[in-house]
Amino acid sequence: MFENSGRTELSQLGEFGLIDHLAKNVKLTHASTIKGIGDDAAVIDAGDKYQLLSTDMMVEGTHFDLTYTPLLHLGYKAVVTNISDIVAMNGKATHIVVSLSLSNRFSLEAIEELYKGILTACNVYKVDLVGGDTTSSQKGLIINIACYGEVAKDKVSYRSGCKEGDLVAVTGDLGAAYLGLHILEREKRIFLERPDFQPDLEGNDYLIQRQLKPEARVDIIDILNTINVTPNAMMDISDGLASELYHIATQSKVGFTIYEDKLPMDAIAYQRAIDLGIDPTVAMLSGGEDYELLFTFPQSDYEKLNKEFDITVIGHAVAEGEGLHLISKSNIKHKLTAQGWKHL
Amino acid sequence: MFENSGRTELSQLGEFGLIDHLAKNVKLTHASTIKGIGDDAAVIDAGDKYQLLSTDMMVEGTHFDLTYTPLLHLGYKAVVTNISDIVAMNGKATHIVVSLSLSNRFSLEAIEELYKGILTACNVYKVDLVGGDTTSSQKGLIINIACYGEVAKDKVSYRSGCKEGDLVAVTGDLGAAYLGLHILEREKRIFLERPDFQPDLEGNDYLIQRQLKPEARVDIIDILNTINVTPNAMMDISDGLASELYHIATQSKVGFTIYEDKLPMDAIAYQRAIDLGIDPTVAMLSGGEDYELLFTFPQSDYEKLNKEFDITVIGHAVAEGEGLHLISKSNIKHKLTAQGWKHL
Repeated sequence: MFENSGRTELSQLGEFGLIDHLAKNVKLTHASTIKGIGDDAAVIDAGDKYQLLSTDMMVEGTHFDLTYTPLLHLGYKAVVTNISDIVAMNGKATHIVVSLSLSNRFSLEAIEELYKGILTACNVYKVDLVGGDTTSSQKGLIINIACYGEVAKDKVSYRSGCKEGDLVAVTGDLGAAYLGLHILEREKRIFLERPDFQPDLEGNDYLIQRQLKPEARVDIIDILNTINVTPNAMMDISDGLASELYHIATQSKVGFTIYEDKLPMDAIAYQRAIDLGIDPTVAMLSGGEDYELLFTFPQSDYEKLNKEFDITVIGHAVAEGEGLHLISKSNIKHKLTAQGWKHL
Repeated sequence: MFENSGRTELSQLGEFGLIDHLAKNVKLTHASTIKGIGDDAAVIDAGDKYQLLSTDMMVEGTHFDLTYTPLLHLGYKAVVTNISDIVAMNGKATHIVVSLSLSNRFSLEAIEELYKGILTACNVYKVDLVGGDTTSSQKGLIINIACYGEVAKDKVSYRSGCKEGDLVAVTGDLGAAYLGLHILEREKRIFLERPDFQPDLEGNDYLIQRQLKPEARVDIIDILNTINVTPNAMMDISDGLASELYHIATQSKVGFTIYEDKLPMDAIAYQRAIDLGIDPTVAMLSGGEDYELLFTFPQSDYEKLNKEFDITVIGHAVAEGEGLHLISKSNIKHKLTAQGWKHL
């Protein structure tokens, strides 16, 4: 693929291609390493349970724009996105360590706001902040959080566990975080062109909240535990539903058939998508950042899950050879492609 | 301290002041959290042992300069500095997760070099790379590693455990990494002024190696275990001996008397310091980045430790009220101040 070239651009691989490429050379030596690179969190055998370890880096200019992101919300979101990775393994987060790199453009008061958000999330999700590193950068703000959690050995859900015939479900609703980002970006452009204009954010509270202050679905982990259902496969929806379906399909060696009319969207979000000229289905499939859960389970668990109002069955797993498809509202079969956000 | 000011510059606090300030608001809720912010690693109760968790961020332009730092060495050093934090708790590192943020200035081949260094260190130190995050930045390279390790419950060493009367020891030799940095910086300046000049690095191999490719003293942990000595207090020397002594003194509520003529320095390093017009003692006290260990132990363990050739007793702990002092070679008592590298 990269022959006859002294320099290979990272954009040729994309984020997932780069990770796959680098992961090939990784050798695991500890018997306690149950799962390394390739899932939402690493899984380490700690005797009577599994310990989970994940990390997430957020870079100013790539992941957030401080012109419309309050530092309080940013701190909260940085913690939540990490907790969501632990939740995606059907586990509970317990501890985090936070690394910050910041330029002298930030005052103590600004960092206090960021930390207030971090500590609010710690309080809401019952996570202990136990360490970190604070350092200066020449430019911008970078936040890295490593999150540590746990899961009972018989409850862990991997991306690789989906079986043909499984039903596919998502929690909550999709696409709103993407629309929130779209609205914030639009208002920023208007502000830069016409600083005297007042921002028009009315009626968009839910969408903007979904973008700026997402939540991790720990409540779903509790529900699954209560009704005694362990998903065969699970992920959180950070890059977009299509991208996450692709990951589970690849790792589980299955295909998926998903039904457009089953995809859950908030009513206001749907209307705003139409207003903005954005296909609501595209927002749900490719938007990302909703931090809802995508999971698959055997049909025998359907009755138990069907009673939970915040869980929606959107399709089922098929044989690998059948591939990934979306059945449109007009009953046309479309090929589904992974359109996760390629940060690189 | 910061009254009458709407904006407080981070430089007014420094790195340690900022950490102390932010840590005040942290509340710990998990019974498993044995030690949070304030030591080389967090300590979490995992039943039959303690788990250790640390994180370290390295930022281009602050922590490394790619004009003279090969990416291979940088990757190695990034892992080693994290392992050293676990070693400083008298523990062994087992797993790491690596976050990278990089601009499109870096090619795949460059990142492969960096990863080769990371994986070499993983191999040397028997650590499993189990996950990470790779993202793009607008500028520069940032590496964050979170390191996970373990220690027997009766073997953990904190910064806070030093007792009056303890002997103070360091491993290996000090100051060489700082001199290595000085030489690399000098050659960079010369190169920028006179690109036709050949770099004069002859005879400086050891110093440059100490700067570019430090090692973590896991061998010392094995020795301490073999001779059945558990340090009352321990740290790794990353910011400089004086700064680390200050941390242990503050947390253990003791003072220290250190003897200049006991401080261990490599013979070539000593000579190069003189040649460069740098006081060798200043290089040892304030240089940092040697990643040697500083630890204290009861006098009753002296006979056991005195047999180990790579451990040097440099002084003893005194009452808190006596403060920190250096007894010079000419037997003059100097007040020792914390002169850790203030990155902020």
